[in-house]
Amino acid sequence: MAQMNRRVLLKSRPQGEPAADNFEITDAPIPEPGEGEYLSRTIWLSLDPYMRGRMSEAKGYAANVGLGEPMVGGTVGQIVKSRNPKFREGDFVLEYSGWQSHAVSNGAASMKLDPNAAPLSAALSVLGMPGQTAWWGLMQIGKPKAGETVVVSAASGAVGSVVGQLAKLHGCRAVGIAGGKDKCDYVTKELGFDACVDYKAAGDGLFKAVRQACPKGIDVYFENVGGAVQAAVLPQLNDFARVPLCGLISQYNQMQMAPGPDWRLLLVKRVLVQGFIVSDHFAEMQGFWQEVPPAVKAGRIKYREDIVKGLDNAPAAFIGLLKGDNFGKLLVQVSDDPTRK
Amino acid sequence: MAQMNRRVLLKSRPQGEPAADNFEITDAPIPEPGEGEYLSRTIWLSLDPYMRGRMSEAKGYAANVGLGEPMVGGTVGQIVKSRNPKFREGDFVLEYSGWQSHAVSNGAASMKLDPNAAPLSAALSVLGMPGQTAWWGLMQIGKPKAGETVVVSAASGAVGSVVGQLAKLHGCRAVGIAGGKDKCDYVTKELGFDACVDYKAAGDGLFKAVRQACPKGIDVYFENVGGAVQAAVLPQLNDFARVPLCGLISQYNQMQMAPGPDWRLLLVKRVLVQGFIVSDHFAEMQGFWQEVPPAVKAGRIKYREDIVKGLDNAPAAFIGLLKGDNFGKLLVQVSDDPTRK
Repeated sequence: MAQMNRRVLLKSRPQGEPAADNFEITDAPIPEPGEGEYLSRTIWLSLDPYMRGRMSEAKGYAANVGLGEPMVGGTVGQIVKSRNPKFREGDFVLEYSGWQSHAVSNGAASMKLDPNAAPLSAALSVLGMPGQTAWWGLMQIGKPKAGETVVVSAASGAVGSVVGQLAKLHGCRAVGIAGGKDKCDYVTKELGFDACVDYKAAGDGLFKAVRQACPKGIDVYFENVGGAVQAAVLPQLNDFARVPLCGLISQYNQMQMAPGPDWRLLLVKRVLVQGFIVSDHFAEMQGFWQEVPPAVKAGRIKYREDIVKGLDNAPAAFIGLLKGDNFGKLLVQVSDDPTRK
Repeated sequence: MAQMNRRVLLKSRPQGEPAADNFEITDAPIPEPGEGEYLSRTIWLSLDPYMRGRMSEAKGYAANVGLGEPMVGGTVGQIVKSRNPKFREGDFVLEYSGWQSHAVSNGAASMKLDPNAAPLSAALSVLGMPGQTAWWGLMQIGKPKAGETVVVSAASGAVGSVVGQLAKLHGCRAVGIAGGKDKCDYVTKELGFDACVDYKAAGDGLFKAVRQACPKGIDVYFENVGGAVQAAVLPQLNDFARVPLCGLISQYNQMQMAPGPDWRLLLVKRVLVQGFIVSDHFAEMQGFWQEVPPAVKAGRIKYREDIVKGLDNAPAAFIGLLKGDNFGKLLVQVSDDPTRK
């Protein structure tokens, strides 16, 4: 039997929390590349919180996924067949092929990867969208000054882990918020944050736990989660605090609008809040390329991958991501990575 | 009988809306200036929404008014007696003497006014704190570009009126929100805004009324009021909108924290919200001085004063200010202005 193109389609739109039956796993014939196109096999698929928005009908950043269409997502693939002179069989590429095992592309938005420069999967985590998200939000909006306190939620995640390590490299006190002892231990002992608050253990005492971790208040709050964590953090902002608003993962499954904080708090303390999405700023990443890849190479920025094997497991992994079940950057290994032992 | 120093003291802290009995009007002996000090007679007292915060115990921008102390506020006075060589009898000064008919000062924070350059009272409105608030928030945070839509709440007020006129001078569509037909007529016919939404007349149809006035959405929302007006405006922000957060007058009398908007709205549209208070920026007003006084002189920026005569009427006028009863910059004329016919 010929190999098929395995795909995960959006079958129905979730009401609140996504469930397995919102997805459909199917096989289709592997497409043939036309003139100027190539066919790639997907090796790594990135799972990211923003995908929840693409599953909804509600207006979001970008066009939503249509019913019956493959879920979208960043991928690393290897060229199988090429009719595009810029890409040769065997080349590795960063692409946006979505939740499928094979894809045809004209390569316009693809970037060739050198497997000797960094592990292929890093292009989807610390050197890719999550790492650039961390750098942009912290450096361009948060603008941390040495001696200030930077708090980041989802601190063990792909974005949060880079935020805190960058804050440390810039002379700040870095405080993470994460769920569970293992994640908090990782954040402080492996990543070198000054403190990490376990929001699950803290429960109703979260405000106090944050205060203990931030005796001088909070100058930058890098917001990934919203909800109860946000409610505990915002009253502890210092005057002129900056809040890069990157994500609100705890709210993505909520059907109704959730009340935010009283704006009097933002007014009295002259707080800046700025929502951002990294894809608006891909052309302004010179500072990222100067700072982050060398720091990763030198071991001053560490990262962790949470790898799920097999495309069929993507839906369950994604549902878990929205609950914080992952530990590190969540990746689906769709097929063999020949560069990895 | 010798003349006395008439003073309005904070007698008790308001629970919610301030009432007349939160104030006490008393006479005290007129103080004698010591070496290096002067005595001034108050001519104009500015009444401004921020004073509500100073009446509370809750943490605000600055030290609150103590019980039994005079209410604070910006004033224009004339020197009666001086033992400070920089100030001579008869000089006019911009000071911060508060709600009293006379005050002694060392002059360190006082600024001499030239009555030939502009009416004395303008130093408390279009050329003073409200005008500078409008300029700073709009130009430094809002950063309007020609062709964009700028919406300002409390549009007929001391700040809002300048915001909209500046927006027009910078090539924007200026849309005001104000309460009542008279204010809206003034905003469009006198001040030249493109449209003004009467939030009282619109009632439950406020969202729709704002949409009709802003067919291309909203790029800058200069926030003075909060509450229902904010709730109608924020969902109509365009991507990359800026929200200078200047005031929340509809919320100042609320005892409980009021829920704000769902931050998903700020995230998806990449909105910037920045709380500010003009006194942080008095040293950065070069652009204001270059732009606004000439525009006022040329009649391209107009302003309106709502004058209440007699210090004893200050409490009632202030209580009305918080309800939007004033029409234009609210000033108390405490004593005769010899430069005004």
